[in-house]
Amino acid sequence: MKTLEYVLVYFGILILLNQTNENILANDLIYKSQVKKKIENCQKIHSCKYFLRFVDIYDEMPTIYIITPTYLRETQMADLTRLRNTLLLVPKIVWIIVEDSLEKSDKISSFAMESNLNIVHLAEKTLKLEKPSKYSAHKGVEQRNRGIYWIKEKQPQNAIVYFADDDNSYSLKLFEDIRSVKKIGVWPVALVGGLKYEAPICNNDKVVDWFYAYNQRRYVPTDMASFAINVQLLYQFDDSYFERFTKSDLEGSFLKRLNIKVADFEPKAEVCSKIHVWHTRTMLVKIRKGEIVERKI
Amino acid sequence: MKTLEYVLVYFGILILLNQTNENILANDLIYKSQVKKKIENCQKIHSCKYFLRFVDIYDEMPTIYIITPTYLRETQMADLTRLRNTLLLVPKIVWIIVEDSLEKSDKISSFAMESNLNIVHLAEKTLKLEKPSKYSAHKGVEQRNRGIYWIKEKQPQNAIVYFADDDNSYSLKLFEDIRSVKKIGVWPVALVGGLKYEAPICNNDKVVDWFYAYNQRRYVPTDMASFAINVQLLYQFDDSYFERFTKSDLEGSFLKRLNIKVADFEPKAEVCSKIHVWHTRTMLVKIRKGEIVERKI
Repeated sequence: MKTLEYVLVYFGILILLNQTNENILANDLIYKSQVKKKIENCQKIHSCKYFLRFVDIYDEMPTIYIITPTYLRETQMADLTRLRNTLLLVPKIVWIIVEDSLEKSDKISSFAMESNLNIVHLAEKTLKLEKPSKYSAHKGVEQRNRGIYWIKEKQPQNAIVYFADDDNSYSLKLFEDIRSVKKIGVWPVALVGGLKYEAPICNNDKVVDWFYAYNQRRYVPTDMASFAINVQLLYQFDDSYFERFTKSDLEGSFLKRLNIKVADFEPKAEVCSKIHVWHTRTMLVKIRKGEIVERKI
Repeated sequence: MKTLEYVLVYFGILILLNQTNENILANDLIYKSQVKKKIENCQKIHSCKYFLRFVDIYDEMPTIYIITPTYLRETQMADLTRLRNTLLLVPKIVWIIVEDSLEKSDKISSFAMESNLNIVHLAEKTLKLEKPSKYSAHKGVEQRNRGIYWIKEKQPQNAIVYFADDDNSYSLKLFEDIRSVKKIGVWPVALVGGLKYEAPICNNDKVVDWFYAYNQRRYVPTDMASFAINVQLLYQFDDSYFERFTKSDLEGSFLKRLNIKVADFEPKAEVCSKIHVWHTRTMLVKIRKGEIVERKI
């Protein structure tokens, strides 16, 4: 009798265990097939595929701080929307948008709110200053400096800083290059300085020269869009800000303040042989004056 | 002895089963935590978050066929790159790029190859035809028609067609609107026809009028960027192509061929109250002639 009891209990427990086992296996299979389906569908969506490569290295990646000066005009939302679309494809960024105004506008506030991006929205009005003779006045200076000031206050550590105007055109590869910057990365910029492109000239993976036409007296003949810097450079120098008036050398005078030497340049964009950024300008439109036509159709 | 044997076998099997059980549970936990970590990191990447909403409905979504005429110019790659970035954020599309040339260029071929997008690359040279008097000649007509012809050949079924110029600016919301089109969707377009925007005027969710200024004689005063159609319309009408010469009514004459009536218009963009597309133009740049300066820096 005892034996029979043992046998019964034994089979009873066996059946129970087996069921639990099967349940776990079944749940596991359902779960895995759901995840598989999700991943398959995700793979079908182009950008998901693009992003999967960043998922495993996300925590180690430096953050890119992108400073964008902007000002009110008919084409502003068009340009910002295009730039937002591009930046939505760049993981781990902080987008610092600085309006040229006394206060933050409702329009840009809503834009930032609905963006699903990590946006810092600031405002800094361009000062009315008299230009010294023989100097040129630069646009976006107070706004970029406001962005730099914000960064200096927050003191992020593992970060790269890039100054991105709102009407330029950026390839995604540019941001992969920026991500790999140690001290200062440089690369060609298309449609700038009256040329098809301005570009660092390299020899054995080092920058030895620069291809450009405009103003030979510049400290470095580089466009705003052609470099990105390690955030630590901003902390090392108290005057790491742009100057409103320079001798046509906005970028060079800034890099001089950061004590950048030619030897510091890290050439990107396949040793400066590719174009990943274009200095485009969006045409300002003429809006018709007078009466507007409305008719039934 | 028999009892002892049973008991031993019983505990033996119990231990074995338990281990299997624990292994399954342990594997399951590791697997789940890995997936969780992946999803967490994916969530941190803005666009992944954006895309997760499409994953479950992917199979039922109609495909959007986007026809983009393009032509060689200094700003071409900049414009196409920006548009590519936008389209990378739109799931389930086929991007039909039609070059204005006899043969497909290497440049656009490489661009298409490296895009991670479902691109159909075609070429169709604009014919040199004499314009009849009182008519206006339109750009991009042969290229859009080549795209339409390709679609008519392939006969995709659950699909919407949109004509997207390469230099316009598109918000992602536009494509969500396009996805929901049944017959023909319409919406405002900014910076067009000499106005801040042209737009359908709605009453009780129906289009009753149009806000515009340019050419009152148009069949429908709508811009190319302001509508998308169900692909079935292309199959229903043999002459569902654009006309090279019209009385300044490229879009209207096309919609007339599709027998579109005002009652067919499905107003999008929150009953045509929002701007999701801008008719931007990229400034053509002047490239400096003559000697190029190169100097050691």
